[in-house]
Amino acid sequence: MTCPLSCRAIATKYKPFPPINLPNRKWPSRVITKAPRWLATDLRDGNQSLPDPMNFQEKKEYFDLLCKVGYKEIEVAFPSASQIDFDFTRYAVENAPADVAIQVLSPCREALIRRTIESLKGAKKAIVHIYLAASPLFRDVVFNTSEEQYLSMATKSAKLVRELTKDNPDAQDTQWQFEFSPETFSDTPLDFSLRVCEEVKKAWEPTVENPIIFNLPATVEMSTPNVFADQVEYISTNISEREKVCISLHCHNDRGCAVAASELGQMAGADRIEGCLFGNGERTGNVDLVTLGLNLFTQGIDPKIDFSNLEKMVEVSERLNKIPVHPRSPYGGSLVVCAFSGSHQDAIKKGFARRNNAADPDSLPWQIPYLPLDPGDVGRTYEAVIRVNSQSGKGGAAWIILRKLELDLPRGLQVNFSKHVQDEAEFKDRELLSDEITDLFERKYFLAEENKYPYSLVDYEVTGKGEEKKFQGTLNIKGEIVDIEGVGNGPISSFMNALENYLGYDLDVEDYHEHSLGKGSATKAVSYLQIKHNRKGSEEPLTEWGVGIDKDVSRASMKAALSVVNRILC
Amino acid sequence: MTCPLSCRAIATKYKPFPPINLPNRKWPSRVITKAPRWLATDLRDGNQSLPDPMNFQEKKEYFDLLCKVGYKEIEVAFPSASQIDFDFTRYAVENAPADVAIQVLSPCREALIRRTIESLKGAKKAIVHIYLAASPLFRDVVFNTSEEQYLSMATKSAKLVRELTKDNPDAQDTQWQFEFSPETFSDTPLDFSLRVCEEVKKAWEPTVENPIIFNLPATVEMSTPNVFADQVEYISTNISEREKVCISLHCHNDRGCAVAASELGQMAGADRIEGCLFGNGERTGNVDLVTLGLNLFTQGIDPKIDFSNLEKMVEVSERLNKIPVHPRSPYGGSLVVCAFSGSHQDAIKKGFARRNNAADPDSLPWQIPYLPLDPGDVGRTYEAVIRVNSQSGKGGAAWIILRKLELDLPRGLQVNFSKHVQDEAEFKDRELLSDEITDLFERKYFLAEENKYPYSLVDYEVTGKGEEKKFQGTLNIKGEIVDIEGVGNGPISSFMNALENYLGYDLDVEDYHEHSLGKGSATKAVSYLQIKHNRKGSEEPLTEWGVGIDKDVSRASMKAALSVVNRILC
Repeated sequence: MTCPLSCRAIATKYKPFPPINLPNRKWPSRVITKAPRWLATDLRDGNQSLPDPMNFQEKKEYFDLLCKVGYKEIEVAFPSASQIDFDFTRYAVENAPADVAIQVLSPCREALIRRTIESLKGAKKAIVHIYLAASPLFRDVVFNTSEEQYLSMATKSAKLVRELTKDNPDAQDTQWQFEFSPETFSDTPLDFSLRVCEEVKKAWEPTVENPIIFNLPATVEMSTPNVFADQVEYISTNISEREKVCISLHCHNDRGCAVAASELGQMAGADRIEGCLFGNGERTGNVDLVTLGLNLFTQGIDPKIDFSNLEKMVEVSERLNKIPVHPRSPYGGSLVVCAFSGSHQDAIKKGFARRNNAADPDSLPWQIPYLPLDPGDVGRTYEAVIRVNSQSGKGGAAWIILRKLELDLPRGLQVNFSKHVQDEAEFKDRELLSDEITDLFERKYFLAEENKYPYSLVDYEVTGKGEEKKFQGTLNIKGEIVDIEGVGNGPISSFMNALENYLGYDLDVEDYHEHSLGKGSATKAVSYLQIKHNRKGSEEPLTEWGVGIDKDVSRASMKAALSVVNRILC
Repeated sequence: MTCPLSCRAIATKYKPFPPINLPNRKWPSRVITKAPRWLATDLRDGNQSLPDPMNFQEKKEYFDLLCKVGYKEIEVAFPSASQIDFDFTRYAVENAPADVAIQVLSPCREALIRRTIESLKGAKKAIVHIYLAASPLFRDVVFNTSEEQYLSMATKSAKLVRELTKDNPDAQDTQWQFEFSPETFSDTPLDFSLRVCEEVKKAWEPTVENPIIFNLPATVEMSTPNVFADQVEYISTNISEREKVCISLHCHNDRGCAVAASELGQMAGADRIEGCLFGNGERTGNVDLVTLGLNLFTQGIDPKIDFSNLEKMVEVSERLNKIPVHPRSPYGGSLVVCAFSGSHQDAIKKGFARRNNAADPDSLPWQIPYLPLDPGDVGRTYEAVIRVNSQSGKGGAAWIILRKLELDLPRGLQVNFSKHVQDEAEFKDRELLSDEITDLFERKYFLAEENKYPYSLVDYEVTGKGEEKKFQGTLNIKGEIVDIEGVGNGPISSFMNALENYLGYDLDVEDYHEHSLGKGSATKAVSYLQIKHNRKGSEEPLTEWGVGIDKDVSRASMKAALSVVNRILC
């Protein structure tokens, strides 16, 4: 094995992230008990990272979706960057529901801040968000500014925003909030970040009623999420006047841990989360607001967002971002409520059966193996849950037969049918559609066109009293009408005896199940028979399953027996 | 906003995961310092969850890839489940490199264990992996077994494996390892999981040299990843004979935290990780081995896997799994080394410039804003890094011009050109390809077909000594040859004077930059001129940028001036 770099070269080129010395950290023992304030930045951070950004009309549709599902703080644009962004901010200001705060982003530059605040004129609720990258890397390489210069730019900008908003007598119709991002927070020495926040807070002078928002970005995710949580806890516990501060997180997913970092960060003290639906955003994306929200939901915590039509959210996001939601994306992905593996399917089936058989299923806690969320709660159907490929065992196909045909196959028949399914899936070299599975079932057990099979029952009569029954009936055998008769202690045994007499076979019922199908006057009976059979005189009997459906219970069983006869003789 | 369930209904239906009482937990202060043992289960857990599982040939190709990049433990199949799986195990056994251990999975059932071990006959290194779901949910709903019955099945199965493998005199050519998964570990009371492991360990009798593998699955991810880490630390610190035990993790991604759970779990004591490339697997997938490996790499730790051709790994995985790698998948996604935002592009450009200008770039730690990994280390090109849409600022387009045309545009010209780019991207309503950007540049600055523009220079001569130069030359103006002349203190100023005289314009050079282009005899000069111009007598001068390229430095500047003339007069 050749590595691109030797071990030594890797260690020289890439430096491990230094751990945070936080001996009395509290977050690992905490749990999240309520939803944070959410800020959706799909229209700003999300949109700027799209190969094909949204046009005006598309942004409107996306904005409407965010409002509709319940986001109350929405970052809509970077108004000083382009005319489109400025114009869209105007649209949002003029059309936002009264309880939705419009947030916009600006760098710490006077002309741009002025232009940004101009775009918010007349808003009911607005959040002015300014940012300045604080890490040594950015200050040295990108901006060439010292720590003192940084502090001066940040406080000057905060004061300018203040002058133009909350201190501006002409702007008192707007409820102004202020957000400051010490950008690249995750890569900035904590004492400097803290100092920045203290200075900016002093410049802004927040109140308990209207706290200042300090948004701590993992601009690039650089460490395991516990380190980020340590960073957040440091700021949350050391900042003065904590009650006048809202700590917000803005996590990116470079190491695949944005959700974890946001959750551990909330345990560490964060009050607010910025992200995008389905994790859109620069590079690996912003944290996924859908996953965070439904993670709360599955812990019994109201996320304050309506995910009941998740398919719609997927559809809008895919169409407007022009980026697919991955099939395995938590909660929203097309494959995440699917089970292909036989043992999974079997367990899910048993879980549903227990739930459905309970006296009051809706009062039970949700406990279905492999399904952390009831698909129904996000508007997805159960049909998608179990899918069948060549790797699936008996449970999956049986579940589909139960769902689609309402036939509750006995275990032995499940095993029997799963072999047919596996052969078919291997033969087709792909997943079977549920219709293909039901078709296969009806073909293999001679249910589809019952009068066209080689052997079918035309009519019958069972006479006699007590244990002595006589069967007399007619079969249609390959177009020819044949009379048969036999005796036994009931209708089935006398019919079996008639078949034995006519066919020259020994036939024994090994296993027998029956249940009703449908309701009211349309109710039918389904009969499942496992029959041991051998030609009279031959030594090794084989077994075979048959299925019959009829309004007449006895006739259903006779059809099941004929289903076996059709299998073994044709 | 209407929620699918009221707050109360959510709290009734879904129960929060109980936190672990682990007062002296150590993992939050630890860091990962080396790669774990990796187990790739793409061919088993990954494959069984595909809508369209791999056929035999596809599994071979995938297996070869896993071996080639350096995985030493590969779970290849579930041999007792289907003939394809059995046959593929035989292929892997017969074709695996000598240092690769073949792992196969079996339930705890005698016939299936026998069949499974049969499939491994003649292997050089083999890992027999058996599993049994331990949680109350599974024991009650799925298997209807008590704790005692569970322990009996588990130990009986371990003893059977032992009898058929390491205690079997006919099987001594194989190096046998044994793995036990108390499945649904994440949902099982810890004291029971520990008891299971102790009993199974006693049945197997591992050694320090050949430890037993206890694989702790988050069969379904049910909690924040810190809780999972607590669970792992509990087992790791409480199990007896720790030195004879290898703790393995098998995380699924239902809450989007599989990577975090695996990393925190390593800090909590785990030695081994099971997962799939790009996070394939049931539902939301198994943990992503690529992300875990490259997360180590970017911390200066050798992952012991060769990711130098990541594009190839993406290609094979997408083609054989028939599931795409998401564009934002960490490290491998097509968009993760792209920056569209202007400020990001600008910062990246400055970071590269600093690195490239260093005396010995290769000896420097990797520090490029927004790029946690050198794309070159995974075989990706820098060309993909910066892409330009209507949201991009000056930096992105300039970077492409630098990369593709080797023109290092002065800042003023970057701003000038970015307006053209933004107009073009808004007009086309999509991202511009890099070729479109270079074409646009050559068109806007009259570089593409320089002799076909309205104004071009045919020939010239500059005479005179000292500060008194005289320019005499001929222009081709829309097909007509025109003589012009002028005076100045150098070739450019005398040419500008000649243009002024002929055109009736005031022309002043506001800004001027020049650099060489190419090397050796093909070296050319590039000249960038910002010219202030107004028709003689008109009051407000405007400025415009021009660019010229020629072997002759003076001629390059004259062409740059004509590039401005073409702009303002045509």
